[in-house]
Amino acid sequence: MAEAKRIKAGELEAFIARAFEAVDVPAADAKTIAELMARADVNGSEGHGIFRLPQYIRRIKGGAVNVKPNIRVEREAPAMALVNGDNGMGHLVMKRAAEIAIEKAKTAGVAWVGAQWSNHAGPASLYAAMPMAHDMIGLYLAVGSANHLPPWGGLDMLLSTNPLAVGVPAGDEAPIVLDMATTVAAYGKVKTKAQRGEQMPVGWMMDREGKPLTDPKRANEGFLLPIGDYKGYGLALIIGLLAGTLNRAAMGKDVVDFNGDDTTPTNTGHAIVAISIEKFGEIAEFKQSVDALVRDLRASKRLPGVERIWLPGEQSHAKRADNSKNGVPMPDALLSSLSQLATDLKIAPLS
Amino acid sequence: MAEAKRIKAGELEAFIARAFEAVDVPAADAKTIAELMARADVNGSEGHGIFRLPQYIRRIKGGAVNVKPNIRVEREAPAMALVNGDNGMGHLVMKRAAEIAIEKAKTAGVAWVGAQWSNHAGPASLYAAMPMAHDMIGLYLAVGSANHLPPWGGLDMLLSTNPLAVGVPAGDEAPIVLDMATTVAAYGKVKTKAQRGEQMPVGWMMDREGKPLTDPKRANEGFLLPIGDYKGYGLALIIGLLAGTLNRAAMGKDVVDFNGDDTTPTNTGHAIVAISIEKFGEIAEFKQSVDALVRDLRASKRLPGVERIWLPGEQSHAKRADNSKNGVPMPDALLSSLSQLATDLKIAPLS
Repeated sequence: MAEAKRIKAGELEAFIARAFEAVDVPAADAKTIAELMARADVNGSEGHGIFRLPQYIRRIKGGAVNVKPNIRVEREAPAMALVNGDNGMGHLVMKRAAEIAIEKAKTAGVAWVGAQWSNHAGPASLYAAMPMAHDMIGLYLAVGSANHLPPWGGLDMLLSTNPLAVGVPAGDEAPIVLDMATTVAAYGKVKTKAQRGEQMPVGWMMDREGKPLTDPKRANEGFLLPIGDYKGYGLALIIGLLAGTLNRAAMGKDVVDFNGDDTTPTNTGHAIVAISIEKFGEIAEFKQSVDALVRDLRASKRLPGVERIWLPGEQSHAKRADNSKNGVPMPDALLSSLSQLATDLKIAPLS
Repeated sequence: MAEAKRIKAGELEAFIARAFEAVDVPAADAKTIAELMARADVNGSEGHGIFRLPQYIRRIKGGAVNVKPNIRVEREAPAMALVNGDNGMGHLVMKRAAEIAIEKAKTAGVAWVGAQWSNHAGPASLYAAMPMAHDMIGLYLAVGSANHLPPWGGLDMLLSTNPLAVGVPAGDEAPIVLDMATTVAAYGKVKTKAQRGEQMPVGWMMDREGKPLTDPKRANEGFLLPIGDYKGYGLALIIGLLAGTLNRAAMGKDVVDFNGDDTTPTNTGHAIVAISIEKFGEIAEFKQSVDALVRDLRASKRLPGVERIWLPGEQSHAKRADNSKNGVPMPDALLSSLSQLATDLKIAPLS
């Protein structure tokens, strides 16, 4: 297989911005969304970057997303806010929410900002990482944009793979960034297996008889399995309550599957928490402790066949360095879908 | 097998208080600890209630725990505090921490209180439930009191089963209370299997060659497995950073195994978060949404052989009702160990 063509982040960003401007997103907002989407690709979150562009544009054209939202604070207290995204792009809503959380945490020490009437915002780690630039820890929770998970023991898909991300700054080491769905595999991984004609490992999915489902082409005959069985079910539920129900955003049967729907607003809920490290003690001392812990974990004796122990976020950190320098690898199929999009929108293609 | 004898919570509480007073814990503190420990048993968290009493007393006698702590706020801001437990019993430290979190959240909307120099505090759900009495959501995180988990791919046990608990109030339904370790099985379950002469299921533990370990008598030849493989490793690490490192409490190689040590202070770290539901909107409306979600989940179609779909905390809720009315079931082995303790401490036995 030939190596994927690599395109510089700046080119991706410019193309994404052109696409959003072509569907009437104001230039400044288009630039913000484009910057975040390209950052997702640079970080190696390739399933949540420019890959989503055709779908986002389709939903805007279908009227499902508001291109001129009045994003506003609906309720607030010294350490919290509830942001109403007015059905704008999730990237705009959550960047604003993160900024509010960071600002409030400077004084309050900790701040929790929920969002309602938002939309898919890309990878969870984008937002969990934002407080780190201010020497804060970031936590991000979201209700996923499609239900693929039943309650434990059940068959009705009432829960999403509700993700959780946490970013913890380190000193000389890469920051620790956990970004995980509460299912063993995210649904995107199932689709990738299907495209490649590969079988899934036992444990990813179960069919409606409770038997392991390993053929990704039969994915619609079963459902994803939560991590740790009933524990992952509990986590997905709790994240949904905190990011959805608490914010009066969609949860449970109200969740709209945004993959197969270009017209219905999703009322997606998220939450972002910023924790000021300084309020708990010296920042430098904290970072030294994180570095020491990272080194202890990495230096652990290893199981036979294991070459290296990774910290959460460390592989993404390495990809970020590589992709920033050498460009983001772009599979041919993605390049053709973006080329088609350029034609449809009558904008200059990716160069 | 004969049914276990059942003892009223009030009797358990009085006995526990007598035991702590016998080792110089002030009467008011002994009462507080006893009330929380008995509550753990009533809730069905039998591995974290009176079962732990002999060990707690042994560690106090060994000088590992301070019976007259000066529990104090070390640092604070409007939405956070860092409580120094002065090496007191964890129950006292975390009750105080929860009270501070609740008080601050009334104004700030959300409050995060960390604790350092604390000790084992019983089941995580005890503290996550406290904010619920004030129509708040509670989150609790802790560094476990023994390392049984290596980093993913590693062999050195640098992590504990760091638990997470979340309590979410409902309306007419039982509150949703998730209380989980980040490993597939808690270590206590392994010990129970060993006592009963039973094998463990594949997936609970792994040996040092990476092979499934199913004989609980060989538990010291392997380690617990995290939920969702590397995801559970990431969760255990993040909880440890938030409850331990951020609070300057023990984490990683500094964690003391309190099971085999009666003299060393543990510097146990915890965190409790209180979220005021009222600040996000009408409390009644929130509780109705939780009730509706609970009913949707419970009414889901079920896998073959599944009789009922449970919500997190629902089985504990049922046990609480039963145990409050009929007393807490006490296995014979536990009763004899408590009888021995009464003799040693020269206090009146459980009646």
